[in-house]
Amino acid sequence: MAFESKIKTIEWHGEVSRMIDQTILPKEFKLVDVKTTDEMYSAIKNMIVRGAPAIGIAGAHGVSLAAIELSKQISDKKKFLEALREKADYLKSSRPTAVNLYWAVEKQMKLAGSIKGTISEIVSALKENGVKLENEDIEINKKMGDYGAEAVPKGAAILTHCNAGALATVGYGTALGVIRSAYAKDSTIKVFADETRPRQQGARLTTWELAQDGIPVTLITDGMCSYFMSKGMINMVVTGADRIAANGDTANKIGTYTVAIAAKYHNIPFYIAAPLSTIDISIKSGSEIPIEERNHEEVTHINGDWICSKDVNIINPSFDVTPNELITGIITEKGILRPDYTKSIKKAFNI
Amino acid sequence: MAFESKIKTIEWHGEVSRMIDQTILPKEFKLVDVKTTDEMYSAIKNMIVRGAPAIGIAGAHGVSLAAIELSKQISDKKKFLEALREKADYLKSSRPTAVNLYWAVEKQMKLAGSIKGTISEIVSALKENGVKLENEDIEINKKMGDYGAEAVPKGAAILTHCNAGALATVGYGTALGVIRSAYAKDSTIKVFADETRPRQQGARLTTWELAQDGIPVTLITDGMCSYFMSKGMINMVVTGADRIAANGDTANKIGTYTVAIAAKYHNIPFYIAAPLSTIDISIKSGSEIPIEERNHEEVTHINGDWICSKDVNIINPSFDVTPNELITGIITEKGILRPDYTKSIKKAFNI
Repeated sequence: MAFESKIKTIEWHGEVSRMIDQTILPKEFKLVDVKTTDEMYSAIKNMIVRGAPAIGIAGAHGVSLAAIELSKQISDKKKFLEALREKADYLKSSRPTAVNLYWAVEKQMKLAGSIKGTISEIVSALKENGVKLENEDIEINKKMGDYGAEAVPKGAAILTHCNAGALATVGYGTALGVIRSAYAKDSTIKVFADETRPRQQGARLTTWELAQDGIPVTLITDGMCSYFMSKGMINMVVTGADRIAANGDTANKIGTYTVAIAAKYHNIPFYIAAPLSTIDISIKSGSEIPIEERNHEEVTHINGDWICSKDVNIINPSFDVTPNELITGIITEKGILRPDYTKSIKKAFNI
Repeated sequence: MAFESKIKTIEWHGEVSRMIDQTILPKEFKLVDVKTTDEMYSAIKNMIVRGAPAIGIAGAHGVSLAAIELSKQISDKKKFLEALREKADYLKSSRPTAVNLYWAVEKQMKLAGSIKGTISEIVSALKENGVKLENEDIEINKKMGDYGAEAVPKGAAILTHCNAGALATVGYGTALGVIRSAYAKDSTIKVFADETRPRQQGARLTTWELAQDGIPVTLITDGMCSYFMSKGMINMVVTGADRIAANGDTANKIGTYTVAIAAKYHNIPFYIAAPLSTIDISIKSGSEIPIEERNHEEVTHINGDWICSKDVNIINPSFDVTPNELITGIITEKGILRPDYTKSIKKAFNI
């Protein structure tokens, strides 16, 4: 059973990609029209749009925008495709960790290369396919939600980290999609949201979107999870993912790994919810996943104010890798994958 | 070998208790003169002074202030002592978790009851004893520092949580005292400081006081510790304590327990540094330690601004309890206590 979320995070609209500006939520709700490849690169890099599946769609839209731009400048189809490849690679370089960006951009590039017709027909096909990927994303999330909901105990309190919700996808969510589907069946479930410093996506985005949908949420700071686990107040953890290796090792927002260790210590099931497009079967283990380091101000400042001495060193990895041994299951649109992940992932991909 | 810290957090000064206002650091350095029992109650409750050993001294000064006040109103010694008891109990109610407050207030009350002379002589004795406790606190910290430094590997990177430094004591620190003593012997050691949401004592206070003393410090957010542990970049954890049960279970700032679990998972030694006055031998285990819950704004606001949806639930425990099985050693002024803590604590108390 699928719960209807009111949020549409990113949507192709005529000749532009329309998205919710996630840097100013929950203070302000604003839609932004992204009109060029450069604007899309910045929107992804500066996290106006974020969340692995959502930046996948942003990447797909980015290729459509690039094609629109280039179709006005280039009439030779081969040169057009070469120039499109350059812009596609540029878009892919905006953020290194989430693999969905690569996946969606390459889906578009493969399509562009396969069209027998004119440049104008390529442009149309890319725009159409961008919209198709949007719709598929929601359908995939709803399937994941239904599978995941079966793993949620009655009345469970579910901890999530960062935002893997409607705002991280087109409109339903991966981890929060599981929660939405579970809530549709059982309105006694509750959510604990980690604040998720440094960028506070849990505080800013997860509490906002759950409140929009009327799902009860308790905000906690990142160090608190073990306290509530030890009190029996958290029964399950579900987070999203930015990239999953072929062995199930999972890169997700920094802090996820700490939560997974705490869950293991308390024998609490720890699930990842992610579409197959987040699984990178080309890499064997988590050690091969590139970890983005972001700017120091994310740690030293909050709302523009210094929070510490100016004489500090900062290292700001945006993601960490949770080893497969800490993961109870990976919830996908093909069902819940279980250890041994090397085998169950192969099976999900039919390889 | 003791490193000289430049910071004097709390100090009896004529007829007042002079303290650094820790609510406005690191933006502003300001000394506050606390002149009455009520002002002291508020200073402790609102965390102008914080840190278990420092609020112990604040409690002792509070009794001196109460005695000064009452000596101007009451001439009968028995009535004076009864009124002093009331004010002492009031001071003790300002914060429930740190046992040093009880310990120091009761030290003063025992002294007051033992003086054979006049009310004026009681007042003098209390003021003198307050100063004596200050000096003892520094001496105890330096002893702890020396013992603890022996457990620090050469060139170690040491993670600490919250602020257990000069600012949490009279002027040297418990966990940061160990770091100061280690740094005096080996200037290649480094510190990682957890931000320590919600009140950010790690970001605001620990980075400030280490920078004051020129000790290199890297600020990280609370979820990051496991990432750096898995990379071999953290070799040891040392934190302070607010109350230690007779079996070694340790209450400390919320988030400590999560760090201890992460340290265990990575086989990294996890130490508590605390004077014997932090050990409450009257309670058997951590489950008996009262955990203070503080106001919701600490979680929902930073620097006065909302950071989340207004439709959230909040539970804000200020402390958690790290079970003894996760603690490698408890560094005290009588040496490093090791498991079995029930035995080693008894031995340290000569019981």
